[in-house]
Amino acid sequence: MEVHLITQIIKASLEEDLAWGDITTENLIDPNQSSELILTLNEEGVIAGLPIAEQVFKILDPGLIWSPLKKDGEFLPAGTPLVKLKGNSQQMMKAERVALNFLQRLSGIASLTHRFVQEARRYSETVRIADTRKTTPGLRHLEKYAVRMGGGHNHRYCLADAVMIKDNHVAMLKQGQKTIQEAVALVRKRISHTVTIEVEVDRLEQIPAALEAEVDCILLDNMSNEMIVEALKLIQGHCTVEASGGVNLQRVGSIAATGVNIISVGALTHSANALDISLDYP
Amino acid sequence: MEVHLITQIIKASLEEDLAWGDITTENLIDPNQSSELILTLNEEGVIAGLPIAEQVFKILDPGLIWSPLKKDGEFLPAGTPLVKLKGNSQQMMKAERVALNFLQRLSGIASLTHRFVQEARRYSETVRIADTRKTTPGLRHLEKYAVRMGGGHNHRYCLADAVMIKDNHVAMLKQGQKTIQEAVALVRKRISHTVTIEVEVDRLEQIPAALEAEVDCILLDNMSNEMIVEALKLIQGHCTVEASGGVNLQRVGSIAATGVNIISVGALTHSANALDISLDYP
Amino acid sequence: MEVHLITQIIKASLEEDLAWGDITTENLIDPNQSSELILTLNEEGVIAGLPIAEQVFKILDPGLIWSPLKKDGEFLPAGTPLVKLKGNSQQMMKAERVALNFLQRLSGIASLTHRFVQEARRYSETVRIADTRKTTPGLRHLEKYAVRMGGGHNHRYCLADAVMIKDNHVAMLKQGQKTIQEAVALVRKRISHTVTIEVEVDRLEQIPAALEAEVDCILLDNMSNEMIVEALKLIQGHCTVEASGGVNLQRVGSIAATGVNIISVGALTHSANALDISLDYP
Amino acid sequence: MEVHLITQIIKASLEEDLAWGDITTENLIDPNQSSELILTLNEEGVIAGLPIAEQVFKILDPGLIWSPLKKDGEFLPAGTPLVKLKGNSQQMMKAERVALNFLQRLSGIASLTHRFVQEARRYSETVRIADTRKTTPGLRHLEKYAVRMGGGHNHRYCLADAVMIKDNHVAMLKQGQKTIQEAVALVRKRISHTVTIEVEVDRLEQIPAALEAEVDCILLDNMSNEMIVEALKLIQGHCTVEASGGVNLQRVGSIAATGVNIISVGALTHSANALDISLDYP
Amino acid sequence: MEVHLITQIIKASLEEDLAWGDITTENLIDPNQSSELILTLNEEGVIAGLPIAEQVFKILDPGLIWSPLKKDGEFLPAGTPLVKLKGNSQQMMKAERVALNFLQRLSGIASLTHRFVQEARRYSETVRIADTRKTTPGLRHLEKYAVRMGGGHNHRYCLADAVMIKDNHVAMLKQGQKTIQEAVALVRKRISHTVTIEVEVDRLEQIPAALEAEVDCILLDNMSNEMIVEALKLIQGHCTVEASGGVNLQRVGSIAATGVNIISVGALTHSANALDISLDYP
Amino acid sequence: MEVHLITQIIKASLEEDLAWGDITTENLIDPNQSSELILTLNEEGVIAGLPIAEQVFKILDPGLIWSPLKKDGEFLPAGTPLVKLKGNSQQMMKAERVALNFLQRLSGIASLTHRFVQEARRYSETVRIADTRKTTPGLRHLEKYAVRMGGGHNHRYCLADAVMIKDNHVAMLKQGQKTIQEAVALVRKRISHTVTIEVEVDRLEQIPAALEAEVDCILLDNMSNEMIVEALKLIQGHCTVEASGGVNLQRVGSIAATGVNIISVGALTHSANALDISLDYP
Repeated sequence: MEVHLITQIIKASLEEDLAWGDITTENLIDPNQSSELILTLNEEGVIAGLPIAEQVFKILDPGLIWSPLKKDGEFLPAGTPLVKLKGNSQQMMKAERVALNFLQRLSGIASLTHRFVQEARRYSETVRIADTRKTTPGLRHLEKYAVRMGGGHNHRYCLADAVMIKDNHVAMLKQGQKTIQEAVALVRKRISHTVTIEVEVDRLEQIPAALEAEVDCILLDNMSNEMIVEALKLIQGHCTVEASGGVNLQRVGSIAATGVNIISVGALTHSANALDISLDYP
Repeated sequence: MEVHLITQIIKASLEEDLAWGDITTENLIDPNQSSELILTLNEEGVIAGLPIAEQVFKILDPGLIWSPLKKDGEFLPAGTPLVKLKGNSQQMMKAERVALNFLQRLSGIASLTHRFVQEARRYSETVRIADTRKTTPGLRHLEKYAVRMGGGHNHRYCLADAVMIKDNHVAMLKQGQKTIQEAVALVRKRISHTVTIEVEVDRLEQIPAALEAEVDCILLDNMSNEMIVEALKLIQGHCTVEASGGVNLQRVGSIAATGVNIISVGALTHSANALDISLDYP
Repeated sequence: MEVHLITQIIKASLEEDLAWGDITTENLIDPNQSSELILTLNEEGVIAGLPIAEQVFKILDPGLIWSPLKKDGEFLPAGTPLVKLKGNSQQMMKAERVALNFLQRLSGIASLTHRFVQEARRYSETVRIADTRKTTPGLRHLEKYAVRMGGGHNHRYCLADAVMIKDNHVAMLKQGQKTIQEAVALVRKRISHTVTIEVEVDRLEQIPAALEAEVDCILLDNMSNEMIVEALKLIQGHCTVEASGGVNLQRVGSIAATGVNIISVGALTHSANALDISLDYP
Repeated sequence: MEVHLITQIIKASLEEDLAWGDITTENLIDPNQSSELILTLNEEGVIAGLPIAEQVFKILDPGLIWSPLKKDGEFLPAGTPLVKLKGNSQQMMKAERVALNFLQRLSGIASLTHRFVQEARRYSETVRIADTRKTTPGLRHLEKYAVRMGGGHNHRYCLADAVMIKDNHVAMLKQGQKTIQEAVALVRKRISHTVTIEVEVDRLEQIPAALEAEVDCILLDNMSNEMIVEALKLIQGHCTVEASGGVNLQRVGSIAATGVNIISVGALTHSANALDISLDYP
Repeated sequence: MEVHLITQIIKASLEEDLAWGDITTENLIDPNQSSELILTLNEEGVIAGLPIAEQVFKILDPGLIWSPLKKDGEFLPAGTPLVKLKGNSQQMMKAERVALNFLQRLSGIASLTHRFVQEARRYSETVRIADTRKTTPGLRHLEKYAVRMGGGHNHRYCLADAVMIKDNHVAMLKQGQKTIQEAVALVRKRISHTVTIEVEVDRLEQIPAALEAEVDCILLDNMSNEMIVEALKLIQGHCTVEASGGVNLQRVGSIAATGVNIISVGALTHSANALDISLDYP
Repeated sequence: MEVHLITQIIKASLEEDLAWGDITTENLIDPNQSSELILTLNEEGVIAGLPIAEQVFKILDPGLIWSPLKKDGEFLPAGTPLVKLKGNSQQMMKAERVALNFLQRLSGIASLTHRFVQEARRYSETVRIADTRKTTPGLRHLEKYAVRMGGGHNHRYCLADAVMIKDNHVAMLKQGQKTIQEAVALVRKRISHTVTIEVEVDRLEQIPAALEAEVDCILLDNMSNEMIVEALKLIQGHCTVEASGGVNLQRVGSIAATGVNIISVGALTHSANALDISLDYP
């Protein structure tokens, strides 16, 4: 994570909170006072975003001393001290909420990913838990980093990374009277030689055309476990297989057990709860 | 919500997804093809963010026809069609994910707020469910709008809105050997005459000093319902009373029943799950 | 003042002056030459903006040594040396005009505020001189800081800080057949519990309705001193009272003498003259 | 004035005022209500900035009807109606302050310039009143436009427009043991053939060297009228002559009478008072 | 090409040229005059960038009528009229240079690409001419579009599109005592399932290890045609083969004749000459 | 060149390449490994842009040690080592391409300028080779710096630097029935006293009117050498003379020999080839 390239969203967040200053802190606390505070994890989970939090504090107090006790990607019990901070009291109070907003959200994503990975691993040594493009506007780079910290894998970063032919594309192709095979052939001639092609199917009868088109991956969308098993029989290892759609912690294990290669989960980023972390006097 | 002032975060989100174009859509779909699609709500909830979604689609296709069937703030059952769209097929596919990322997140917040409000209303006609500053970096303005759409109230927008003396401030004051009464007196002399003062307490013995300081609001932080009842007896209506800290749907009703004026809930914005909405052919 | 959050307007100003470089300095002065210069106050007044000026110089010469002899908020006689600078000759010449443009404008505002406060203080121990939203586009945060440095108080930072019902609002309410009491009741139900309500009146007969609506502050707009006295009798201390409209140095004392709590003065920011400050060889 | 290139400072100003919305207007006024309002000039002066004000209103209400009765550069008596506006009531209230902040400041500059020009014209048919680089950070382009609207002329836009060798440069040259003649010769070899060279002098004995260096313009800095007359005798029309330094309305006529070509006045932009303009129901 | 997402670089370019206006046009031409002008191609080539040029003109004159006679990607003879423009005379003069700067550069790239493709096609039906990341800072998206318009293919857009292990990586791996096979295995476990892996080799003895690592593509860097032929024998079609390094128009045909799949050419974007296009009265 | 003001285009370029990170380097190289690398010039030319390249590397690795062996403006043979770098291996790999893209382009411009200057100098001691506004969008400031490093001179930076009346202006003036003399007189009354006026002519009969208008410079556009000689006879040294239009290395000497003062060459910036520079292990 290139912290030096991520200053824009950090500054935008500080401006949300501090555009007019902090009338409590500025009017109450001696501007020369310094304090030692500690970031503490209040519930178990995987931490992610410490370099961002560090950057937030240091933008307001370049002289702040940041002494990390843990690092991103570690799974930790409730009550774990994460970082000791020593710096200007006013500036730490001003930075607190923004730093925590980043840290709690990213750690929430890492922790949820960790739970999906743990659950899937019980049924498969190799299946991957992957994220989606269902990320928070403006935070995609950070959220996909958090997924990796939680043990997950990234799917496409953006719409130019890989070809993904989804149901609406297929409907539009039909409107234009083109088959999947023709479509894949056409797109393959135009894209970079480094790019792979994935096709989404929601019915078993769509699979033979996808195989004939020699796609690199087939996405089984919203299929029952039984259908997934049938699909895998049809595909017979001729390409990578991804399952997606309505995956939750209850069901992820049984999907993993079918033998698919990838399970992608929108909830990792669109429905993770913040992890409880606080800044306090020791 | 001034959509015309919110173009920056929308454009940043489109650039996340589309900085290099959409290699699937651009290479597959006829650039002159048009389609009619429909945004549909797939689970019950309160919708919020339609003007943002509209803006996303219209940035890419200024000629798109946006025909809303519902509007922000409505509580709707699963299966409700929300908007009919008629526009360029390529551009709608390119805008889809970003538009949904905004719409699903904001609707998730509105829906969770609605549930808290409904639950609290069973026990109190007047108690308010309020948000916090625990919002997603970059999205505070939008998320606080979503809270209002769900029937909630906004707390401070930023650190200059109102004075809020929290536990770390109190500890810093002690370090500087100042009492709460002195601190409140000092800050009152400096702030605008339009600004109010709130003090956070987590023990009952802190209340008399706060009352003596004639603060406008006392925040009872992380207190049990029993302690809240005791606190209300001490305060006797001399100022507004807010309860906060670890509030969830199970407990919000019983807190409302104590008679506090405000219940503030960080989860409204930091732990709301996305509401399921999709874009499809009718 | 968070200098680290104010880099955007500083950089924009440097780009105004230096987008194509400084063809005089670059072609005349040895790039390795260093000099010692001094910032001097050429007329009496209150200085404000030194941290901004420092930032301007240091952006162009990070190694510059800035040795302040005075600090923001001090009232100083003509001829006072303010800061000694030692740095790269080229870079100091390039930074000079932009640094002075900030420093002279903010010191002008602080100095004018100081004169209003001094004049008012002759007639009232407690009356406040407050600014308005009539600030220079892009500089509101800095100008409101300068007002505080001059001994004034800030009014609203922005349109979400406090409710202020002005004459045009009242006219629009009439168009919609709503009374002030109804309007205030409506808005109170919707706004945050931390927000106060102020109503502008320009005739005495408007006061009873405002009092009945239990507003927090009444703004007496463009009233003669006699009318102000009558208004204060009607209000009888039931809320804060602010006077505004065409206030100047001649009249501010007599308004203060009426006993109003706040006198707000647009001229503090929209009509302050720059304070004369120069950068020279000692 | 390219209004389409000036959207950035306009949007930044709207964000200063409206980042969190307008809690008065949004909670009071029917979002569908429309009104007819009028911009009125309340004191005599030259108007400047109408296209900026128009842009401010139209960003918030693209459908607003803007019917100008006067245009930039006109000298008008107090009480003149300037523009009729018909648009959404909420949006006009939200735009009002920002639009007026631009319009009043720019009109203030145009009006002050007009007074200097009128005063100088009584003593000289040809002398020019010119601005300086002492402009408000971020607003230079607009303020120099306002000077032209007031009948003044622009001096350098930025540090690459023309060479201007000032007193500190001369001191630095001395430190490097270079004469003015050498310096001018050196810089002339390096700059574009389209660029002219001006030298600032504050003593008569500096003039011969400047003439020998064949500069295009000599700036007489802070000289008494008597010294200016002496300087003009020495220069004998061999180059353009500019007078500057502490020029005010009292003295500008007598300077004009000396026969200098240009009188530059920092006060035009750094010490102009806002012109009183208001938005009201007709 | 999403013109609506490319406004930032267009506006930045207009600001380079027009930050202080156009003193020639504004002072010479009647602001209400309109003209009909024509964009003409003055030398043969492939045109690219018309939508960008259109956007430039329309930002300054939203009412301008743009009547294209040709479209991006067409190979055209010298003297071909490209677009008729009818609009405000002042605004067209102000937009001219910026519009042409985009159009001439992008058309230069498209034309050079076209020549490489034509030359290669004489020796191979299928070989692709691909671009590189050696693009102009800030213009990568546009320049890669121009390559496609010239008949070329895009290689990686950015460093996250595909894995490319280059000579310096290999040296660093050695420093860390890792083999290529180990390195590829490691990276494959971490990257998205949609991402492919390419390895650069500059000696034949590196090829077996790359094949053993089952990379998707081998890049033959700076090899003679004879070495390329040997390399192809070793590879035997087990992966895609790309040749690169010092490719020019003289040599591209003979490289194509070797049977490689891809020839990547940095010169397409880093050394294309502008195509001569002018704006004139018909 | 103010490196501290040029961070925006540098950061934009880094974001083009690194918005999603560098999946090769991040997954292959130990984040704590450091290396010593060297920037080497692979073909003879004039180097320009080292401070920009330094900035690129230091944004990603603030602790990198940059040891320059050469500096901007030097003409160097192929094989010259330019800079030794010692820093974090990952960060140097991430910065490499962006740094080289700046350095190669600017050095290409400096080198081409150098060749034009050398060629012209064989025929004239004093003629200047000047650039034009035909620069890359977004890079004008840097490219004009590179021209100076190559020994060339800058022409106008932007449309407000000097008046330049071109053929289309003349045609528009005719449409408005104004002569060149009238036009020049009009514009002279309006522009700053520091600004000069140049007129473009493409026929000899246009010269007398330009001379009569007392312009500062006449631009002979697209004239044969014979016509240039005739033009110089007509002008007789009454103003500066610039030749332009289709100037190339073959012809620049013979134009210089005619005795014109300035030869301006669009190709310096619009058609320079990148200079070959690479980053490698020593």
